[in-house]
Parts: sequence; structure tokens; C-alpha cells
Amino acid sequence: MAKVKKQPRPKAETPKGFRDYFGAEVAQRKAMLDQIATVYHRYGFDALESSAVETVEALGKFLPDVDRPNEGVFAWQEEDDWLALRYDLTAPLARVYAQHRNDLPTPYRRYAMGPVWRNEKPGPGRFRQFYQCDADTVGAASVAADAEICAMLSDTLEAVGIPRGDYIVRVNNRKVLNGVMEVAGILDPTDPEKFSTERGIVLRAIDKLDRLGPDGVRALLGEGRKDDSGDFTKGAGLANEQVDVVMSFMEAKRADGAATVARLKELVSNSTIGQSGVQELETIAELMAAQGYASDRIEIDPSVVRGLGYYTGPVFEAELTFEIEDEKGRPRQFGSVAGGGRYDDLVKRFTGQEVPATGISIGVDRLLAALHAKGRLDKAAVGPVIVTVMDRDRMGAYQSIVGDLRNAGIRAEVYLGNPKNFGNQLKYADKRNAPVAIIQGSDEAERGVVQVKDLVLGAKIAESASHEEWKAQPAQREVALADLIAELRKMLGDMDSDGAG
Amino acid sequence: MAKVKKQPRPKAETPKGFRDYFGAEVAQRKAMLDQIATVYHRYGFDALESSAVETVEALGKFLPDVDRPNEGVFAWQEEDDWLALRYDLTAPLARVYAQHRNDLPTPYRRYAMGPVWRNEKPGPGRFRQFYQCDADTVGAASVAADAEICAMLSDTLEAVGIPRGDYIVRVNNRKVLNGVMEVAGILDPTDPEKFSTERGIVLRAIDKLDRLGPDGVRALLGEGRKDDSGDFTKGAGLANEQVDVVMSFMEAKRADGAATVARLKELVSNSTIGQSGVQELETIAELMAAQGYASDRIEIDPSVVRGLGYYTGPVFEAELTFEIEDEKGRPRQFGSVAGGGRYDDLVKRFTGQEVPATGISIGVDRLLAALHAKGRLDKAAVGPVIVTVMDRDRMGAYQSIVGDLRNAGIRAEVYLGNPKNFGNQLKYADKRNAPVAIIQGSDEAERGVVQVKDLVLGAKIAESASHEEWKAQPAQREVALADLIAELRKMLGDMDSDGAG
Repeated sequence: MAKVKKQPRPKAETPKGFRDYFGAEVAQRKAMLDQIATVYHRYGFDALESSAVETVEALGKFLPDVDRPNEGVFAWQEEDDWLALRYDLTAPLARVYAQHRNDLPTPYRRYAMGPVWRNEKPGPGRFRQFYQCDADTVGAASVAADAEICAMLSDTLEAVGIPRGDYIVRVNNRKVLNGVMEVAGILDPTDPEKFSTERGIVLRAIDKLDRLGPDGVRALLGEGRKDDSGDFTKGAGLANEQVDVVMSFMEAKRADGAATVARLKELVSNSTIGQSGVQELETIAELMAAQGYASDRIEIDPSVVRGLGYYTGPVFEAELTFEIEDEKGRPRQFGSVAGGGRYDDLVKRFTGQEVPATGISIGVDRLLAALHAKGRLDKAAVGPVIVTVMDRDRMGAYQSIVGDLRNAGIRAEVYLGNPKNFGNQLKYADKRNAPVAIIQGSDEAERGVVQVKDLVLGAKIAESASHEEWKAQPAQREVALADLIAELRKMLGDMDSDGAG
Repeated sequence: MAKVKKQPRPKAETPKGFRDYFGAEVAQRKAMLDQIATVYHRYGFDALESSAVETVEALGKFLPDVDRPNEGVFAWQEEDDWLALRYDLTAPLARVYAQHRNDLPTPYRRYAMGPVWRNEKPGPGRFRQFYQCDADTVGAASVAADAEICAMLSDTLEAVGIPRGDYIVRVNNRKVLNGVMEVAGILDPTDPEKFSTERGIVLRAIDKLDRLGPDGVRALLGEGRKDDSGDFTKGAGLANEQVDVVMSFMEAKRADGAATVARLKELVSNSTIGQSGVQELETIAELMAAQGYASDRIEIDPSVVRGLGYYTGPVFEAELTFEIEDEKGRPRQFGSVAGGGRYDDLVKRFTGQEVPATGISIGVDRLLAALHAKGRLDKAAVGPVIVTVMDRDRMGAYQSIVGDLRNAGIRAEVYLGNPKNFGNQLKYADKRNAPVAIIQGSDEAERGVVQVKDLVLGAKIAESASHEEWKAQPAQREVALADLIAELRKMLGDMDSDGAG
């Protein structure tokens, strides 16, 4: 051998904040995406897959959660352009609609699912690549479009396995909030830019009600708040009377939708925009009722604001209401798994014309985590039937057996490692969670039979059986090769042995 | 309104070389990926979804087609690391296996599907983001693993709709080629690095046989080649006798596999590595025959080398053998849609230990293009049933109708644009390729009926009918609301009205 200068070996690691998904994880997510797509499609939405890479210019500055310092996108310079990985599916939709609007129907209902990337500080359970699953209607000004999104969100949650009662879709309206801001003196309809910094802080403060409680929010509305670590977050600087107005809005929820609407009407009686927002909430409530969506599925909740700055009308949030245990074993509500709302200005950036739009984004990974927490998803999938190799020279015969099984739709494979040690073959079958192993030595081959080993039953017996039972080997029996497929079908029973999803 | 300084509008464009996929395109690709996954899964392969972003260090320098100047990845610096988008699914597999090898079964059969990104010059039909669909077996040294990959590739092509006879899986072996190189005097087994530049040029020259013909390849094996534009590509600099040896290898294909193997044996009789390669080809041929894969599906073809430098043993390529018309209307063979082979060194980069591996990558977008070229895929999908809006105040009633249809599994939507102009609603239905429109004015509502308009029949009548037929409106009739679902099911017949895939 020639002397080749040794280079240091590369590290076998994903970049920080990224991860890989294996077997059952991939299959479960795919199954969920398929279930969601089926509902979206049934509602008349068409699939769109935009490119993962966009120009920074097209993505614009619509980054969520602007108060976080490490917030950003993954971007790089390419010749004259700055390119970036999409950070959500909404900004690309605005670009797609502006680019193709002459060829697309109006309204344009589209759904999209795929990974998005955030250049944020990774943390436990917090990754820099994750899946979103969105549906949006572009070009429909009517709140009937918003109501449809809420109904679809409710149907979708039930389709993926969240039973009614375990979730609630909450609806609010930014116009009502703007009306409250007007009443509180931090929105001047004749000068919309004035107080925009204060309003941004108010929005984000309200969005943190769950986490910080009313006192924490009051602090952020006023001078500011010192957190447990001693860090100080500057507040909106509102006077006490102003803070009271905003807090009364957040606490406006009553026992039923009609009472909540009545309370909101009182609060914004001096604001035209606020009144129009309440009117929209009433219409949405009527449309939901007409379709039979009662308050066990959808409710009006003034505390929902959604952090994103770009919403202009109705906003929605789906929350799972059951409790799970947190890292420390304490019970807590699972919380939000989807959110969205109406954003009438995103397309305008490109075209100069206002295009009304509304939509929803489902956090698929969080929804999967919820189903796992409720024990509704299996950890491991059933593996293939393993045809073991007793006799290396008869590989062709083993391949022929496995070929027949596959043609019959049975998931199966020949052991392809070194066949010398038979114990390793069974260990492999165990690691693959294989339901059955098939064994054929030259003696069996001559007689046209195989040994069929039931690994599920075998594992049970190994756990609990007496020595006699163990020796009797009820988990293994001889089957004529001609009967193998029928026998396996019986054994695999209702196990899903061929679904890739 | 306040005066806001105008910023120039961003361009609504994908970055150069990227594109969006709409409706039927997304559904057709998804259907194909599902079909492929079903076959891979039935063969015992497990899904893996690795992160789209890798460290540049982990991706290493295994870039294909190293003789192209603009070749590269999309990369950027992030704190201390250089990160990049994956350019294929094989390099990430090597990293994943090295990282998780203690938890994974050995052999590890995995499949992966998803976009990859190439920082290459875009061109017509040549994009910088495209789908790959791979299956690999890691940790199996036996050529039985290679044979299995070939059988699976053949099954997969038939599963996605390429009938037997329209494709061929070609198999060769790098060791045979190395034997030929040894005989030609450009491989010294005692000094493997010597002549590596020449061998790289030889490999890429052979890979261009289809495009350049024998004379073009001879030129590249010798001094070099001037192309039509006058550009000169430097050759491997072989002497004529050496060129003859390499050419005789490329022309070694005979009428059947046995004759080809016999010819290859002659050519490499003086090379140990070459003989071992021929032996492996024979074993693969035997295993394929044992499973019934005859030469109408899989054949040995010495002209297959695959451009990638990392293959170490068997190499495969699937080619579609039917003719299509090129841009200029001339018939040409469709060509390669999948390729792969054995690569025993990729994991070693990380761990220092050689790990045998073999696999295949299917170019899904090319395969879809092939099915389109053969007219086997529809251009447009069937749209939803459209419930039109005759009376804006009765939106709740329309939503209720559409809700009932969806609950019955019928894809349906209410028109959500401005309902003022009824003609626009029918134009919209036409653009959506809707099969049926439903119309209910206040008169019909009172009587509990709807008008059902068969848009498919209507379009036919509009094309060909006489004035009398047109007036008779056979495409529109009144249906009791209670009978609507049954009526629609009859009309939609075997149209797939709810499959999202």
C-alpha cells in the first residue's frame, strides 16, 4: 500500500439542532400528513409544493417572534442574490400567488406540507428543522373563508385521532383587539404607524398570558418585567388606566359565545374598527352553528392573539385540552398545536394590490408528540418475516422463498449478514421486531418443508414458560413450502404486514 | 393616512433553478413515492428521514461529476461550522449509520425519499432542487444484497407503471473494470493511488459512450476531444493499445449473459481483481435466475460504469427502452432513471472501519417525466363539487350543504369569491375542473331542492349540440336536497372524488 497522508476523520453528527427520524417515526408522520391531506383535499384545497429555497427579498421581514435575539433564517449569498431556507409556508405562498396569480383560480385554496427551517437557538425538543402543514385561502374577503378554515381544523384534529372534547379551536379577531387599543389610546386610525412599537409589545405580552399569568402580562404592559433569572424585559409603558382596558379585553370571555360577544361590544363601543371585528366574530359564530360546530369544538376567546404581526382580522388557535406530564412529572395542559388567521397584506408586498387571505398552520411534530403522550401511537412497527440462511450455498433457494412471499404481499427478507452464527440471525430478527423467522436446512429442503418460528409467541414463552413447555417448542413448527403463504397469512392475522405508511 | 416612505417591491420569483409544483404534479409525485415505498417496505427496508442540512465536513468531498466547473453544494457558515444542504441521500446515510450504528440492526436496510440540492448551473428541465428515492443495505458484504437491490429495482419500475419490456436493469462490476485497467497498465494493485487521475478520466469517458459514441470515447481515452463548440477536453493520454483494451471491454456485451461473462473472463484473465469481479457477476446472474428475473428484466452490460468515484463492486443502472420525442421532435431513447452500486468505503471515512454497503437511487422526477411522455398520467386532476352562492345571506345554508357532502366523503366547496356575478362562479368551477356545480336560489330552498349542473356533460354539449339541445339543458336538473348525496355519487361514478394522493 502507498503511504497516504492521514486526514482527521469527520465527526458523524447532525449539525446542532437537527435530527434524524427512523422507521416508525417516519411512517407515523407520513400517516398523519396523509390523514390531514385527505381532509384538506376534501374541503377543495389543492396541493402546492414550493421550493425550499427562496430569495431573502421574497421572504421579506415577516419573521415571527421578533423579540428573540437569535431569531433568523439560514441564509447565504449566491452570485447577486441572498438565498434562504423558508422559515414557514405562508411567506412562500404569498410569493407563489403573486408570481402565478394569472394562472391560478380565485379564490385559490391550497395546502402545503413540508419542513421549514429556523435559525434559532436549539433546545430540548426544539429543533431547527420541523414540519408544518398549512391550508390557506387566498382571494376570499368573506369571513365565510375563515369559518371554513376553523371547521376544517376541527375535522382535521379528529381525523388524526384527537377525539372531540380533547381539543378546542379558539377564535378571536385582531380588529377587536385594535378597537381595544384605540380605546386604550395606543391606536390612532388617522395615523396607523404611531404607537406601533407599543402595540407590538402589547401583542406579544397578551400572547404570553398562559405562561406568565395576568401579573406578568400587566408588568409587560406597564414598565416591564424582570424574569426569574433577573433579566429585564422592557414593557409597553402604558399607564394604569390603559393597562386596565387591555386586561379587561383579555378577561372578556364569558360562559358562552353570545355573552362574550356582548361583553366585547361594550368594550369597543367607541371604536369603528372594533365594532367591525365583533361583527365578524358574530358571523363566524353563526356560520359554525349552521354547520353544527358547537362550543365543544369551536369557541370565541379574546385571549387568543397569535404573536405574528401580520394578522389583520380573525385569528385562530387549536389547543389540546388534556393534561400530560412535563419533564418533571407535573401535570400540565398540552397546549397549542395549530394557529392561523387572516392576513390581507402579504401578497400586497409584491403586487401593490391588497389580496385578502386566511389560513392555518398545523405543527405536525407537536401533534405527533401529543398522540405519543396519550399512548395512541406504537413505539415500534412490526418488522418483516425473516428467512434465515442455514446453508450459504442455497442462497438462491432462500431468495426464491422470499420472492414468493413478497409477491403475495407479505413483507419479508433473507438474512444478508454473515450467516455463520445462527444465533446472530435470530438476534437480528429480534432487533427488527420480526414476527416470524423461517428456517430451512438441507434436510427440510429435500422434504419440501420449512420450519416456521413464531417469534411473538416465542418471546412470550421465554418470559413465562416452564422448562417442559420450553422444550416442547410450541412456537416452532414444520410447514410444507406449498402451504407457507397461507400459514403466514393466518399467523400474521390482522397485523399490517405490507403498509409502507 | 401617514406618509410612509415607499420601498421598492420585492420580485415574486423563485431563485434561479428552483420551481414550484402545483396540484396534480404534487399528487402524482406523492402517488409514485407511495408506490415505491410500498415495494421497498415489502423488501424489508425501513424508512429514514435524515436532516436536510449537514455539516460540510460530514458531506465530505463525495460530489459527483467532478469535472464540471459549477459543481457544488449550497453552503454557509454558522458560528464555527460550515453547513450545507445535502446533495444526495447516500452521504447522509453514511453519516447516520456511523452515528447510530450501535442502535441499528446489521445489516441495516433503509429507504429514504426527499429533495436534494445541487449548486449547479440550471438549464431547461434541470433544477437545483429535485427528488431522490433511495434504498440501501449497509453491513452486508454478500452480492446477494446487490442482487436483491436489482430485483427490487425491477419490481419498483413495474409498480409505478413501467411495463416489462419498457425497461432494463443493467448490471456491471467495477472490479471487472479495474481488472481491465490493470491489463491496460493503468492500475497497479501494489500502488492503488498511481494513475488515479487517468482512471478518473477513463471512467467518465466510458460513462459518456451513449452521448459521444465510440469515437468520442476513444478521443477522451487518448489525447483529448474537441466538442462542437470548439472547447477541448483533455484526455487520459493512453496509448493506442491501451485504448484498445478499454474499448474491447466496453464492447464485450454478447447475445446473452453467459456469453458476456465468458468474454469478460478472457479480457481479465491476467487480473485477480478482474476475475473476482466476473465471479460476482456470475453469482448475481445465478441469484436473479433463481428468482425468475430473466434477461428481459436484468442483463449484464459492460458499458455501465456510473460516473461516481466511490463504487467498489457491482454497479446498476435502470434504463427506459422506449422512444420519446426530444425538443426538436426527433425520436430518442428515454434513457436512465435510476442507478446505484456497491460502495464499501463511505462509512469508513467516519469510523475507520470498512462497512460494506450497496444501494440504488431512483430519479423520481425523471420517472414522472417518462410516464407523462407515454401519456400515462393525466395533466389535470378532477376538481371539487362547487356549491354556488345565489343568495349571499344564505351562506350558512350553503355551508351546511357542503358540510354534508364532505361528511359523505365527496370533495366539495362553497364558492368563496364575490358572488355578485354568477358567470364568474361558473368560470371558477371550470378553472377548478369541477365535475358538478350545485345551484340553490331562494325558490329552490323553499321547495327543498337544488339544481345540479353536470359540467362535464355541459362542456360536451357546448362543443357539439344544436340550439334545441342546448335549450333543453340536459346537463342540468332538479334534485331533492335529501337525494343529493346519492345523486352525486351516481354522477361522479368511478371518478376519484376524495383521494388526496
